[in-house]
Amino acid sequence: MTDLLLTGIGRLVTNDGPPLVGAAVAIENGRITYVGAEADAPSQGPGGRIDCEDRAVIPGFVDAHTHLVFAGDRADEFAQRLAGADYTGGGILSTVAATRTASEEDLFRHAARRVRRMIAAGTTTVEIKTGYGLDLETEQRLLRVAQRLAEELPVTIRTTFLGAHTVPLEFQHDPDRYADLIVEEMLPAVASDADYCDVFVEEGAFSVDQARQILEAAAVHGLPARVHAEQLSHSGGARLAAELGAASADHLDLATEDDADALAEAAVCAVLTPGASYSLRKPQAPGPMLLDHGVTVALATDCNPGTSYFESTGLVISLACVQMGLTVEQAVFAATRGGAMSLGLEDHGLIKPGGVGDLVILDAPSETHLAYRPATNLVWKTIKGGVVVAG
Amino acid sequence: MTDLLLTGIGRLVTNDGPPLVGAAVAIENGRITYVGAEADAPSQGPGGRIDCEDRAVIPGFVDAHTHLVFAGDRADEFAQRLAGADYTGGGILSTVAATRTASEEDLFRHAARRVRRMIAAGTTTVEIKTGYGLDLETEQRLLRVAQRLAEELPVTIRTTFLGAHTVPLEFQHDPDRYADLIVEEMLPAVASDADYCDVFVEEGAFSVDQARQILEAAAVHGLPARVHAEQLSHSGGARLAAELGAASADHLDLATEDDADALAEAAVCAVLTPGASYSLRKPQAPGPMLLDHGVTVALATDCNPGTSYFESTGLVISLACVQMGLTVEQAVFAATRGGAMSLGLEDHGLIKPGGVGDLVILDAPSETHLAYRPATNLVWKTIKGGVVVAG
Repeated sequence: MTDLLLTGIGRLVTNDGPPLVGAAVAIENGRITYVGAEADAPSQGPGGRIDCEDRAVIPGFVDAHTHLVFAGDRADEFAQRLAGADYTGGGILSTVAATRTASEEDLFRHAARRVRRMIAAGTTTVEIKTGYGLDLETEQRLLRVAQRLAEELPVTIRTTFLGAHTVPLEFQHDPDRYADLIVEEMLPAVASDADYCDVFVEEGAFSVDQARQILEAAAVHGLPARVHAEQLSHSGGARLAAELGAASADHLDLATEDDADALAEAAVCAVLTPGASYSLRKPQAPGPMLLDHGVTVALATDCNPGTSYFESTGLVISLACVQMGLTVEQAVFAATRGGAMSLGLEDHGLIKPGGVGDLVILDAPSETHLAYRPATNLVWKTIKGGVVVAG
Repeated sequence: MTDLLLTGIGRLVTNDGPPLVGAAVAIENGRITYVGAEADAPSQGPGGRIDCEDRAVIPGFVDAHTHLVFAGDRADEFAQRLAGADYTGGGILSTVAATRTASEEDLFRHAARRVRRMIAAGTTTVEIKTGYGLDLETEQRLLRVAQRLAEELPVTIRTTFLGAHTVPLEFQHDPDRYADLIVEEMLPAVASDADYCDVFVEEGAFSVDQARQILEAAAVHGLPARVHAEQLSHSGGARLAAELGAASADHLDLATEDDADALAEAAVCAVLTPGASYSLRKPQAPGPMLLDHGVTVALATDCNPGTSYFESTGLVISLACVQMGLTVEQAVFAATRGGAMSLGLEDHGLIKPGGVGDLVILDAPSETHLAYRPATNLVWKTIKGGVVVAG
């Protein structure tokens, strides 16, 4: 007997072949055990059946780039940008100041509210970066909060140490010394509690050489690289990600065709963040060009208080279609399987036997509605490991 | 004793002077009776107090342009536009075909779900246009559905007869005859059940001369004009609206400075629809220019299945700020008081004694968050006539 059986599915996006019509899905012990004709589906225990009433079902969203543990907000900075101010990344330090003085309990409480809203909007896996501490004690606090989120909320979490988010005030006179501190003191102390290491390669943040130093050290500690690359200027982050065989190069708003070739050759995933481009009023990343060059593309919220206070993947998909030019099929794949591939989660982001039982029932007949109706949360139910966790 | 008292308001947007800090609001018999210091507020009955816990409070949204009674959807047309197809307004006829064959009960059921989602997203007043019938019987059915929505749901509704949405298939050989039919048969039959008459002035829909004929006849029946103007081409609708002293000219994506002068001179409200421009991938209407010329601007969802399947004003406000260039203050005013002004609702869209008790408590400390966090429904509670109707 199966734990959960979904019937009446109008359209099933599996990411494992074309969408299916009239298929049922069974989940047992958290894993998908059956995808196929309703007539041949296994029997289910009492109450363990959901009639989807012709709604569409897709894999749960895998949000591969967020900074969702922070204190305070930057609504005023946002309003100043609306009035014409430019974004240079400097605002990060105001969130650092607020986060350093926040208690671990407050950080957890606010982050948990964000994650619960994400779950209600269909997210079943989320990557969380540190980077609002920029000192060892606070960075470790952020990792503990992420760990507690993973323990207390029904969501898969991967953590990324982003001590190299920007240079903290106390090292502005000597950024190289801060890079050394990351390598010599922070990385050894945090490596066992993080899954990845990330560097913001950007004028005003870190150079390619500093990033290489940090990411090579991270590799020694067993942390694969993610790289904030080519967001506000073309700084060489994408080529560095390719050189290091990083798990992902993120943002890529200004990536070139040469960057795309390098990423494709090195099998580095491109994690694109349409919410940030929207909020910063910049052109979207060249998603179609990256796909044309054979790069695996993921879509993420980039949830953060400065440039993309997005807690829902639905609007990200809509922006990716309407502004970036992806097809709905490409965008939904990127927001599910693409994210999972960038996080090395081979059994996430697809609906096939053996995969995790993470899926979303949309209150709509097809996934196109995610792009078409961006102002409504179209998630009817979020299912995590075979259990309904929202809706 | 008052029916509802709001305390702990972090920031109160009244549209009747600058935002207030630390003010309380009292509502009695559906009307606001007090706005001022908490210490001087009237006492409230048991249970009739809400502690807003420093959240921001704004007037309820007044959505002055929707087509929310319809059957079917046009997700496939949307996907075709993503793939490069142009929008000419022709898709309206596919919704007409679906709507003509839908039962009144089904039309009501689907429209009611949309309106409930709008209420949950902060809307307290909504204008509803007909225009998916294009024959007398179906247009009257749509008006009955709108009337039933007003009776059964906690929302103020104004109705607009839009028989001149497009020329129905059966009159494509002789559009003038359809205009005559509207004037001679439809308007006399529907006038007592509608508040306004609207015409889509556009190539492929109706000419300025046809629109003048229809709207002058509507005026004789006591229906003031609204005009779909300058959306896809510059067709003269705005100048016609000014000439006729219309209540509103809507869309205005291609309006000129001369149009703005004419609208300002004639005191015609501009009802802008950022969701349509977004969904059609066109530049936004020149909102700042219209304001500079002294035009009263409203923001509306334009909720319809073809060009703007938007059910939430939050994203409309964000688009108006991020893409159109309004300030948050201008956008929030336009989505509340601006909409009310375009509908002649003098006591709606503002928070002052004597006004209706329609307001929204945001789950955020300021209204800026509406623009800053477009992917989250930030409405904590919607209050209609002093009663909590959502949240």
